[in-house]
Amino acid sequence: MSETLDLTEVLSRLLKAEQILLLCHKNPDGDTLGSAGALYHALKKLGKTDVAVLCADLIPQRYSYMNMELFRGQFEPNYIVAVDVASIQLFGDSVREYAERVDLCIDHHPSNSGYADALYLDGSASATAEIIYDLVCKMGVEIDTCLADCLYTGISTDTGCFQFGNTSIRCHEVAAKLMEAGARVRELNIILFETKSRARLAIESIALSNLEYHFDDRCAMIYMTREQIESTGVEASDLEGLTSLPRQIEGVEVGITLRQLPSGSYKISVRTLPGVDACAICTRLGGGGHEMAAGCELMGGLDNAKQAILAEVERELCKES
Amino acid sequence: MSETLDLTEVLSRLLKAEQILLLCHKNPDGDTLGSAGALYHALKKLGKTDVAVLCADLIPQRYSYMNMELFRGQFEPNYIVAVDVASIQLFGDSVREYAERVDLCIDHHPSNSGYADALYLDGSASATAEIIYDLVCKMGVEIDTCLADCLYTGISTDTGCFQFGNTSIRCHEVAAKLMEAGARVRELNIILFETKSRARLAIESIALSNLEYHFDDRCAMIYMTREQIESTGVEASDLEGLTSLPRQIEGVEVGITLRQLPSGSYKISVRTLPGVDACAICTRLGGGGHEMAAGCELMGGLDNAKQAILAEVERELCKES
Repeated sequence: MSETLDLTEVLSRLLKAEQILLLCHKNPDGDTLGSAGALYHALKKLGKTDVAVLCADLIPQRYSYMNMELFRGQFEPNYIVAVDVASIQLFGDSVREYAERVDLCIDHHPSNSGYADALYLDGSASATAEIIYDLVCKMGVEIDTCLADCLYTGISTDTGCFQFGNTSIRCHEVAAKLMEAGARVRELNIILFETKSRARLAIESIALSNLEYHFDDRCAMIYMTREQIESTGVEASDLEGLTSLPRQIEGVEVGITLRQLPSGSYKISVRTLPGVDACAICTRLGGGGHEMAAGCELMGGLDNAKQAILAEVERELCKES
Repeated sequence: MSETLDLTEVLSRLLKAEQILLLCHKNPDGDTLGSAGALYHALKKLGKTDVAVLCADLIPQRYSYMNMELFRGQFEPNYIVAVDVASIQLFGDSVREYAERVDLCIDHHPSNSGYADALYLDGSASATAEIIYDLVCKMGVEIDTCLADCLYTGISTDTGCFQFGNTSIRCHEVAAKLMEAGARVRELNIILFETKSRARLAIESIALSNLEYHFDDRCAMIYMTREQIESTGVEASDLEGLTSLPRQIEGVEVGITLRQLPSGSYKISVRTLPGVDACAICTRLGGGGHEMAAGCELMGGLDNAKQAILAEVERELCKES
């Protein structure tokens, strides 16, 4: 297990470090990138010459405003910091040589596996970027527009623009501070929340035409075959966003999304309202997750997958009502 | 024109008033209802016996948590307060007898026509509820959960959950204060932002199947015929929400929504990114609105309406580029 640090100790280690490599998780989201971006800019402001960011996957173009230097072997990393990465599997294979020797991990996932030498974990933070905000304040560096943009990105994306259950008082307070520091929230909100790709809309249209209701409309289900997914050219991250759709329908307590994987099996995402345990449903099918958001994978055809997940949903709905 | 008041004078007049009628605008939204609800509860806490809320239209069931007394003639109104109502036309005909003698209007629309005897206007406030928050603080009454819920509803709905261009530093600060006071933001966010009616999804599915791109994909257009609208049983407020959809597509600068009215003519909504003037487009067709959100109505069939609006969009896009 990792040595547990407080924020003062985190700062003191970062101040001593040189040749710093910042690691993000694979399939990078706004929080891992915003946290790395903010830390990158803060460390540069502290006078560190060699700082760079590494991620196993390509960083989506829409985050280019973070303006951080990517790691391409330009120095030999001496101190490796992972941000928002809960377990070593989440780094991705191509960065394994660094993932195996992480000096410090800064994270907000209570499930953090403790793979790093040292860990700063605040499970009550809405986003890792909220922790980085405190760290940057402690550093005493000026929060300029770019740094504020990075931090705002992390907090706003992890809370679904202040909508999800992890949105806290502190979240709104930090957002206000970041706006004061010049965060370009209108421009960022357009990029992060108001822009859908054409492919996303196309698959959404297909998914909606495949919408089914079950159990007195308490459960809604959408599905996408591999052929349908490939016909639209949609990206994985766009598909992820679709999983919240069926649960959002009025009166629906359990929303299910089935998408066929290249292997032919079905990846199943379950989203629930408070009172129905998504994790229990998925665990019984070999998956797992959180109480209101969980998943599993089922072999066999579409009908098979539907039948299996619906049986478990029914069992859970009977228990709850 | 109205006499202009400051907040101290607003408070002093409310303290003196008895038999207070609070008026909302027709097609009520979260801000007019949340403002009225918060003011209702605050005035009750100040010991006023006769306070009630009146709206020309039915208050949607989803706002029932505001728990305010509706006006049904239970007292003779002596002091009439309009909240979030920019002009007298917005009250609706059925409440005209009160709309014509409004003593005080509290509003954040810079376009307020000054129809009331006295006006407190703060055009910089994100929502009227933000002004009511200040007023309630000045009253010194305790902000309990219900009052906080009302104020949060106003601010969050008018800013699209802290996403639109009117989201201010102050907005986030007040949201933090309301959470501290007990606002049940998770429950409210589910009701206000994460719930779509089945009819809304059905019409969305139809609209997406009618999606067209024009002018090198800089313009996206959806349309709904009367028959399609009626087949889903969708409500007017749900249709309103659809108008933001075409503009949200990656690369699209002008999003157009055409919906056929019962009369057969087409109501056209134009939404634009900064740089393209939606108001200019609509004004030339007899409509109007704001720079990034405007509308007009066109007689004749679908092809006619499409042709007319596309010609004006083209003209505007040529000018801008």
